[in-house]
Amino acid sequence: MDDRTGQLIVPETPRRTDRRPANRYGNRPTMKDVAARAGVGLKTVSRVVNGEPGVTPETERRVQEAIDALGFRRNDSARVLRKGRTASIGLVLEDLADPFYGPLSRAVEEVARAHGALLINGSSAEDPDREQELVLALCARRVDGLVVIPAGDDHRYLEPELKAGVATVFVDRPAGRIDADVVLSDNFGGARDGVAHLIAHGHRRIGFIGDMPRIHTAAERLRGYRAAMADAGIPVADSWMSLGITDPGRVRRAAEEMLSGPEPVTAIFTGNNRVTVTVIRVLAEQSRRVALVGFDDIELADLLQPGVTVVAQDAAALGRTAAERLFAQLDGTLIKPERIELPTRLITRGSGELPPED
Amino acid sequence: MDDRTGQLIVPETPRRTDRRPANRYGNRPTMKDVAARAGVGLKTVSRVVNGEPGVTPETERRVQEAIDALGFRRNDSARVLRKGRTASIGLVLEDLADPFYGPLSRAVEEVARAHGALLINGSSAEDPDREQELVLALCARRVDGLVVIPAGDDHRYLEPELKAGVATVFVDRPAGRIDADVVLSDNFGGARDGVAHLIAHGHRRIGFIGDMPRIHTAAERLRGYRAAMADAGIPVADSWMSLGITDPGRVRRAAEEMLSGPEPVTAIFTGNNRVTVTVIRVLAEQSRRVALVGFDDIELADLLQPGVTVVAQDAAALGRTAAERLFAQLDGTLIKPERIELPTRLITRGSGELPPED
Repeated sequence: MDDRTGQLIVPETPRRTDRRPANRYGNRPTMKDVAARAGVGLKTVSRVVNGEPGVTPETERRVQEAIDALGFRRNDSARVLRKGRTASIGLVLEDLADPFYGPLSRAVEEVARAHGALLINGSSAEDPDREQELVLALCARRVDGLVVIPAGDDHRYLEPELKAGVATVFVDRPAGRIDADVVLSDNFGGARDGVAHLIAHGHRRIGFIGDMPRIHTAAERLRGYRAAMADAGIPVADSWMSLGITDPGRVRRAAEEMLSGPEPVTAIFTGNNRVTVTVIRVLAEQSRRVALVGFDDIELADLLQPGVTVVAQDAAALGRTAAERLFAQLDGTLIKPERIELPTRLITRGSGELPPED
Repeated sequence: MDDRTGQLIVPETPRRTDRRPANRYGNRPTMKDVAARAGVGLKTVSRVVNGEPGVTPETERRVQEAIDALGFRRNDSARVLRKGRTASIGLVLEDLADPFYGPLSRAVEEVARAHGALLINGSSAEDPDREQELVLALCARRVDGLVVIPAGDDHRYLEPELKAGVATVFVDRPAGRIDADVVLSDNFGGARDGVAHLIAHGHRRIGFIGDMPRIHTAAERLRGYRAAMADAGIPVADSWMSLGITDPGRVRRAAEEMLSGPEPVTAIFTGNNRVTVTVIRVLAEQSRRVALVGFDDIELADLLQPGVTVVAQDAAALGRTAAERLFAQLDGTLIKPERIELPTRLITRGSGELPPED
């Protein structure tokens, strides 16, 4: 540092191992620069930066002035290594653009913030390899804990991290082949209640359109559908059930097939919000009225004609419960992994109360 | 490491500076453990881990076996410090739960992934202090770059980071008091076109309900409203304009006030998707028909009765353009900050084509 001009003289050129321009990372002021400008030793700067005792107020003022003048900022990556911890938690979602995860993410963030932690988010795009890559990348960056909405069904890759003490809570779907905390909605019970509601309104030929069967929530909701039909003594035709990607084209074809033929379904139960919005479109084009109950609430569902009856999950409560459990793990107040199931709620708005129209 | 039992013997107990349980971070296997188990030197392990030459296949195999047996993982925080860079970019949003940011986030993530970078997300909750805290926390964790949807209007706090080479692109709203890349929608032009559309359908008493006036997009859209009214020679009454938080209660009161009195508005232009969904509810309760054009598209807008006419932004294109510009900065192919404006699109569905009903 040249005190006459106030200009920063970079004391050394760091070794560069990538092709990026030299000005990208080279000239960030260091503690050394601060020490030189303030005319004190490196240890003194370190004490001021870390709020440790042993510095006179006058020296502290000089160091603070140098920090302000240079725009020096403490490197938290270095602190992470020294302290062995970061104040951050990771959240691995399935899809950043699915509205179901909005309130869930926000709830996790609010809990993290209340604990002074930063939330780091990423999405797996429903790809187990990508989930693993993201989870391990977050662990390598030394997050204190992870809230995971898993895409895969084998999480043994996490065992070394769990042993090393990374707190982990699974949410929305359980972990596979490891023992871990999990917070779920009552997917089975919710779907069973929704389908029983259609049966109570006189339907017998009821279709089920859901997400890919390897996804826990999709499988559980299908199980709920089957249970409600079995409870009512209604045999289920294979053509009434369609599981697969939630792509609008696939869902549309599935719905149209169930609605055609000599014995079409008179009601459809949709397995999640992405499926529901497409089926609403298909039903709006039909000449006869078809009943609908959807899993997950959707915005404006009450303003459609008819209003859409849904089995609502509390996405914010899922996120909040998972995050609180994560911080309880970190505080050392939890001993054993548990499975917590939150209830769902049937909201009747019209579409699920339509009688069968043959 | 005791080779007879296969159990890990922790070589040293790290100093602990927090109150968390001792098993949280203490027993992660180190390169030293790997070296001991494989019976090789530390440098050899480092070569294998970093894919450097100079190791025989037999030795490499032994080291790899030790890595697998111990569950050792390279500590990326250490690599960050050594290389001066992380393969990660940060995205600072306004609200994780606003559906507008879903496709935008996903687009940024896809571009990051194509460049081999991890996306780290966080939200400011429309609080400038929280934005600054989050941005600096991400910088301290040595992200390569930042995509920022700003809450504040003074970003001079970022100057040391920009000088130090952190790539930065602002999106949706411009940076304040610094020179930075920014990618925006044509908020002024889009709002002007939407209001002109209502005027073309015979409306003169048109209300505007928007977000807080300090938010750039809200101010620009109000400016577009005023321009369209001025172009048509219509004087604007103060009572026709209401800006504030997008809380449903506030928006409802604003809409109900404009719709009452001796000279109620016959049409409303809503300044964003959060405002639109509340105004749709208010209008559904009115005995007379009131025209509506909303800024931002909303899911199921076409299935409401009437369908909702909107000025649509391309949220995914905003995210993609911003992220691509960020990586161009990191590649050193951009010299000067620019302002890029993406067009909006008027989508007519019925609500914006209703004639005035006095």
